[in-house]
Amino acid sequence: MTYSHFFDKAVARLKDERRYRVFADLERQVGRFPAATWHSPNGPRDVVIWCSNDYLGMGHHPSVTGAMAEAAIRMGAGAGGTRNISGTSHPIVELEQELADLHGKQAALVFTSGYISNQAGISTIAKLIPDCLILSDALNHNSMIEGVRQAGCERQIFRHNDMAHLEELLKLAGPERNKLIVFESVYSMDGDIGPIKAICDLAERYRAMTYIDEVHAVGMYGPRGGGVAERDGQMDRIDVIEGTLGKAFGVMGGYIAGDAAVIDAVRSHAAGFIFTTALPPAVAAAALASIRHLKASATERAGQQRQAARAKRVLSLAGLPVMDSQTHIVPVMVGDAEKCKAASDRLLERHGIYIQPINYPTVPIGTERLRVTPGPAHTDRMIDDLAGALLETWIALDLPLVARQEAAE
Amino acid sequence: MTYSHFFDKAVARLKDERRYRVFADLERQVGRFPAATWHSPNGPRDVVIWCSNDYLGMGHHPSVTGAMAEAAIRMGAGAGGTRNISGTSHPIVELEQELADLHGKQAALVFTSGYISNQAGISTIAKLIPDCLILSDALNHNSMIEGVRQAGCERQIFRHNDMAHLEELLKLAGPERNKLIVFESVYSMDGDIGPIKAICDLAERYRAMTYIDEVHAVGMYGPRGGGVAERDGQMDRIDVIEGTLGKAFGVMGGYIAGDAAVIDAVRSHAAGFIFTTALPPAVAAAALASIRHLKASATERAGQQRQAARAKRVLSLAGLPVMDSQTHIVPVMVGDAEKCKAASDRLLERHGIYIQPINYPTVPIGTERLRVTPGPAHTDRMIDDLAGALLETWIALDLPLVARQEAAE
Repeated sequence: MTYSHFFDKAVARLKDERRYRVFADLERQVGRFPAATWHSPNGPRDVVIWCSNDYLGMGHHPSVTGAMAEAAIRMGAGAGGTRNISGTSHPIVELEQELADLHGKQAALVFTSGYISNQAGISTIAKLIPDCLILSDALNHNSMIEGVRQAGCERQIFRHNDMAHLEELLKLAGPERNKLIVFESVYSMDGDIGPIKAICDLAERYRAMTYIDEVHAVGMYGPRGGGVAERDGQMDRIDVIEGTLGKAFGVMGGYIAGDAAVIDAVRSHAAGFIFTTALPPAVAAAALASIRHLKASATERAGQQRQAARAKRVLSLAGLPVMDSQTHIVPVMVGDAEKCKAASDRLLERHGIYIQPINYPTVPIGTERLRVTPGPAHTDRMIDDLAGALLETWIALDLPLVARQEAAE
Repeated sequence: MTYSHFFDKAVARLKDERRYRVFADLERQVGRFPAATWHSPNGPRDVVIWCSNDYLGMGHHPSVTGAMAEAAIRMGAGAGGTRNISGTSHPIVELEQELADLHGKQAALVFTSGYISNQAGISTIAKLIPDCLILSDALNHNSMIEGVRQAGCERQIFRHNDMAHLEELLKLAGPERNKLIVFESVYSMDGDIGPIKAICDLAERYRAMTYIDEVHAVGMYGPRGGGVAERDGQMDRIDVIEGTLGKAFGVMGGYIAGDAAVIDAVRSHAAGFIFTTALPPAVAAAALASIRHLKASATERAGQQRQAARAKRVLSLAGLPVMDSQTHIVPVMVGDAEKCKAASDRLLERHGIYIQPINYPTVPIGTERLRVTPGPAHTDRMIDDLAGALLETWIALDLPLVARQEAAE
């Protein structure tokens, strides 16, 4: 190929900067999760997964896998078309009704991924609002940034979770200007939470529309798994709630929920929705089963919170630099891309513990980390093993430990 | 909500322009396809689907549905993370190897949709080529246009399939300028074919890189279903082949195949790939089964070509305005948005025949049509019924018929 050298160079640059990623080939088995088989270069090995976004293990729940298998056998493997051209299956219609109900909204719209939900959702909504100014949290996910960029309208970034800064920008814009505030509930890399109530207060005061990304919260927070906005009693104050079917719900796909008019307008205008094959009926059926289960059952949520709290405590007591987090996400700081990768490799090869290194561009340079996501299926014994393995790795790689507090667990 | 009126207005405008789309709620059943159940406002009804992109019915093939069900039960319903963070399953690794083999390329990369493959693939490739000029066919799909737009580099549109125009632009750009030609093999709305060999000749002469979209061709053309480029013996001359797992392969997802360096560079740089949850192992396993089947079996391809040719003949003989098409796609021209919708509604309600109207923006105004996609499972009797129903509809709506040729079938 004529242009090979450009691509060779691009990859070489990543390797130089220690940002080249190698994907671990994993085979998860139902009934064994979080244990899995790693297809290593030297053959298959047993490992424990500690960085899955299948946060509650719902991807392996018999009602979910059963719904998927049953729908595949009965309705086929694919949708067969875009939503408009023969791809609207009965399960996807039911799924959208279920999602609207989950968030107490009039309607919902399902996309093939959370990424596309944000990209298509934000850009389409902002384009339909005349002279829209988008106010976007500084730590918003890449898919939201892409949505904002594609909207093509003016945008201002407010400092992460900084309500004084947001208010300043809202004030500056003036009451007449149309404004859309886009933010997240759970920020996935630090595990902190957006001030939903304060943002809703400001939005009402300054006449702004609100769009929240709850992908790291749906299924996990709120009495029915509606997210942090549900937990905090703010769900009805948010105009558009975006979520995913691919994390706590354990399947794949994304969605937005809101007023019927907004959802219908996005459905009718978003190219990333219109021109793509719909989710397979089997995927929709599996997501539906998962949402219904988590609406009724708090067991998984309680188990996750319990094991996340235990992991934070045990790792902190071991002297590991656990970042303060308000959620189920447990970041352990490394602060160096190469060492982060080395720690991850050592954990996998020596300890059979799989935690992918989180390096730039996912997090800023200097804040590289291991991002641990304990779930209800991680046992106490697994947490203790994790602490031991991390400690061994920290010492072997000469990574800094923090002052250990003397305390009985 | 403060801004409801903007969204109400946007939807009202579509209704005024007769561009408002209503999705038919369909329940396909394995073993019955192309027959299906339409959940109509008045209850369930039996219909025959004539506009599916599950072109070969592979979405209902027992080896495909079986692979999906088996993988769901054994490996779970979702991937559990992005490709980098715990989402690389063993079936997706195998799928990428299979796709590389299908196209005779060094490597392949799977995306969550064909839309994202194009959007992320084209934009990332063009960004990695210094001062790239993109030459794009005028009828390229929306996802390719989005990819070109997101690349942010200079672009020129050549008239559809016009090699003189493309050569003129290549010449103008000069031999030193880096150039990427993006085009399709089968254009899905007219069913015509891009001049692959001529484009490869020009690309070589003027030192350009080539990117082809084969989404409406993979599985259906070429001795192993590698697409039109395989059929025409041009596969090794194309730098990047993009395809879908959601049409003839009957599942969902998209991919690109090419040199290892290109694929690795896209894998490492494309935000729409990096920051999204991977395809579920069950979806990858189903796609894998489908590709393997169609590599070895030509029965489905032959059946599709036979029934498409028969449908063209029978509909033409009935005096219906069938567009001349070189492929399995059979467009029947209407030329008016409202009548196109009315024809579709009448076919569904009166005849139990489901063909979605294709209106602007999917096709230019004045070229509205019914797009018929006969497959191997459509019987001769179904084709005859279709011709009768179309004829009744054409007469009832006073749509023009063309001079009928007297000929025995």
